[in-house]
Amino acid sequence: MGNKPFNAGSGKSFTLRVEMLNEETNFVVIASAICEHGGDVVAIDMIQTNVEKTIRDITVTVQDTVQIDRISTSIKALAGVQLLHISDRTFLMHLGGKIEMKAKHPVQNRDDLSRVYTPDVARVCMAIHDDPRKAFTLTMKRNTVAVVSDGTAVLGLGDIGPYGAMPVMEGKAMLFKQFGDVDAVPICLDTQDTEQIIQIVKSIAPGFGGINLEDISSPRCFEIEARLKEELDIPVFHDDQHGTAVVLYAGLINALKLVKKRIEDVKIVVNGIGAAGVACSNILLKAGCKNLIGVDIDGAIVRTNTYEQDSWNQFAQRTNPNLESGSLADVIKGADVFIGLSRGGLLKREHVLTMAERPIVFAMANPNPEIAPEEAVDIVAVLATGRSDYPNQINNLLCFPGIFRGALDCRASTINEEMKLAAAEAIAATITDKERNSSYIIPSVFNPTVVENVRKRVIEAALETKVARRVPREYRD
Amino acid sequence: MGNKPFNAGSGKSFTLRVEMLNEETNFVVIASAICEHGGDVVAIDMIQTNVEKTIRDITVTVQDTVQIDRISTSIKALAGVQLLHISDRTFLMHLGGKIEMKAKHPVQNRDDLSRVYTPDVARVCMAIHDDPRKAFTLTMKRNTVAVVSDGTAVLGLGDIGPYGAMPVMEGKAMLFKQFGDVDAVPICLDTQDTEQIIQIVKSIAPGFGGINLEDISSPRCFEIEARLKEELDIPVFHDDQHGTAVVLYAGLINALKLVKKRIEDVKIVVNGIGAAGVACSNILLKAGCKNLIGVDIDGAIVRTNTYEQDSWNQFAQRTNPNLESGSLADVIKGADVFIGLSRGGLLKREHVLTMAERPIVFAMANPNPEIAPEEAVDIVAVLATGRSDYPNQINNLLCFPGIFRGALDCRASTINEEMKLAAAEAIAATITDKERNSSYIIPSVFNPTVVENVRKRVIEAALETKVARRVPREYRD
Repeated sequence: MGNKPFNAGSGKSFTLRVEMLNEETNFVVIASAICEHGGDVVAIDMIQTNVEKTIRDITVTVQDTVQIDRISTSIKALAGVQLLHISDRTFLMHLGGKIEMKAKHPVQNRDDLSRVYTPDVARVCMAIHDDPRKAFTLTMKRNTVAVVSDGTAVLGLGDIGPYGAMPVMEGKAMLFKQFGDVDAVPICLDTQDTEQIIQIVKSIAPGFGGINLEDISSPRCFEIEARLKEELDIPVFHDDQHGTAVVLYAGLINALKLVKKRIEDVKIVVNGIGAAGVACSNILLKAGCKNLIGVDIDGAIVRTNTYEQDSWNQFAQRTNPNLESGSLADVIKGADVFIGLSRGGLLKREHVLTMAERPIVFAMANPNPEIAPEEAVDIVAVLATGRSDYPNQINNLLCFPGIFRGALDCRASTINEEMKLAAAEAIAATITDKERNSSYIIPSVFNPTVVENVRKRVIEAALETKVARRVPREYRD
Repeated sequence: MGNKPFNAGSGKSFTLRVEMLNEETNFVVIASAICEHGGDVVAIDMIQTNVEKTIRDITVTVQDTVQIDRISTSIKALAGVQLLHISDRTFLMHLGGKIEMKAKHPVQNRDDLSRVYTPDVARVCMAIHDDPRKAFTLTMKRNTVAVVSDGTAVLGLGDIGPYGAMPVMEGKAMLFKQFGDVDAVPICLDTQDTEQIIQIVKSIAPGFGGINLEDISSPRCFEIEARLKEELDIPVFHDDQHGTAVVLYAGLINALKLVKKRIEDVKIVVNGIGAAGVACSNILLKAGCKNLIGVDIDGAIVRTNTYEQDSWNQFAQRTNPNLESGSLADVIKGADVFIGLSRGGLLKREHVLTMAERPIVFAMANPNPEIAPEEAVDIVAVLATGRSDYPNQINNLLCFPGIFRGALDCRASTINEEMKLAAAEAIAATITDKERNSSYIIPSVFNPTVVENVRKRVIEAALETKVARRVPREYRD
């Protein structure tokens, strides 16, 4: 039921093309060299063979990329063996890009041509010109989202620029399609200027039904998102903030059920008040949390202080009702829930021991959690991380395909707080009372019911809050 | 051999869903009503039938959209018949947009996910970060072109804005894919500000291997294109200008062969010095024309005058060596070639009669040519138009898929004049000496050899002029 940790994701495979002189060597010699350096032979393809020599493609899995170098070095040193080529499956999958544009209809003759293009397309153009709402039915706007990044906060890599960010945005587009049947177009911007980014996204918006902001550094991401939400009439969603927040809250719903506590009663400490930390706090406050304390490098954020970062001043107004101050070690005392969006290793075992009974720890820093699961697993009730090789992975992929699918299907003008809460509840509800346990508070990203559940609840929330501009067929009387 | 005019493109089909009470009427009554108003029944599908009533979908072709209204009105008036629904095949083909994004690989398990997205994608990101040229091999940049418009000069419709322009740009993307296997992304901009458009296109460029500007009004299109060409290191091509110019010149190469004249010797009058007129003139000058005269609303453009439009002042410097002045009627005298990019009906039969022997007329105004073919066909050697229902259609579709295919394949940094001339020569050469005749100077857009011929010649020209950043395999030693 998904509650067993697995390691498949951390294996890297690559393919070696080797030429062997039949008289001088044999395959066992090569296989031994591979195994000796930690490689696992997973496939062999015979490419060419004759009396004299044999060419084989050998696909090998390793746990660490340094092993690839070691294996290739040792093969090169073998007598009678030539390493012709070494390829890396991950890089092979990226050759020429990971996505393509496809026409929905073929253009095979003059009749097709005259309909999809000039002259007959002019009637469609004029129908939209006369009523721009028809763009939602007669153009790609109906199903297409722009995935916009400036490459300033890509994964854990930081500011690697728009070119380096492209593979992530293309990957996101693949996931949008595969999981949500949403068409997504990566747009990586060669500017980091807040005003310019706002202007550009507003200008390119006519062709899109939604904007997914991605990997834009804090605090610029706050203003960019806020302004775009205000100035555009289509959903704008910064996934690093809100996708994380939705999935975190989904996990917390189930974790709280397990420990039999209510969100209204618990004390929550959020460590790391960047973009994701603010968004996670906001959804928890909206969900009813009364005692939430944010901690960052200067310690607990409290409204009696004034901060350089305006986002912290605003945050302070909404949180820490008892004006607790001090370091993480101080405010973690008696806390029911720890939520980490900071750096590996910041949460110590002795901190956890001072928490309330049956503590819940979400250590979501990547790649290294705030506390190593091995260090905490025996003293917490529930533990979640951002990693796929431990149970309870908080993965945005559980949210963004379904939330946009729902928003597009009801032509929502925005993705509001109610829709986010609904998405979180839908994700949480995928796990039944019987299934729920401390290693299974969040469904697998490959659970096929998640997207449809999220979609439905998001549409219902959009209809209730009157941001839907279309009632999907199944909701019509 | 493509030299027969045909009308298939002008037929419009639509589908009527009609319910008939079996006792009161029958299908013949309906078929009669359709035929009576000029409709042709092309398909019938039985949707539902019982003792009482029958529901049928009837697909009908008409020559003119007004006939659709007449047919539906007359069917509504029939006793025992109810018109449930009327649909239009062109609009049906646009439902939900005409293009979609597609992943090249499925993401079916944790292993796929970890390669196309986090964590393993990070290695690809860093490889590009370390060497941005790798964006051409490891991202969609290798094969993707942005089709950028602000919707100010869409087809013959004028300034219909970015929403109305979308169906044209999506159609263009379909044609890019179908004819050139180029992935194209429509980007319709909600701004008409020249500086903003330049800034936006520059900013979104990292993900694209080329920029196809489309339907941007003159004179802004000149500056936008010139600046982008200068400031970007990927091809920027305003198709309305250069696509038209390339195909026009292709047609002229064959037309001149037919009348046995050389471009160096002929007098060419270009009527309509907008964006396309300037581009057509430029390619002809580059090809060797020594005596080209531009005519616009104020008559012949001559360098002894000063014009408000800076593009005309520049144009005057390069043209009209004999300083001819006056109206079209004056300068057309003795001209060997007329090229119209203006308005329907501007060229009169009496003008043509004053041209040199064996005159060539390219009347490319749309939808009505500068002179109706019927009026001129008996007094010209060669006649070409922009229409598909006459021979010799000057259609950009002959150029843009092949020219971008070639530019992408050799990673050209620009599309220069040599590449455009090469494209025109390739298009012209598709027609053999034996095939060439006055009704067949230009191949059909469905001629399957055009794109490959254009691609090859464009790559060769790019290699020769050293703007190629990659030598395609077939050109390597």
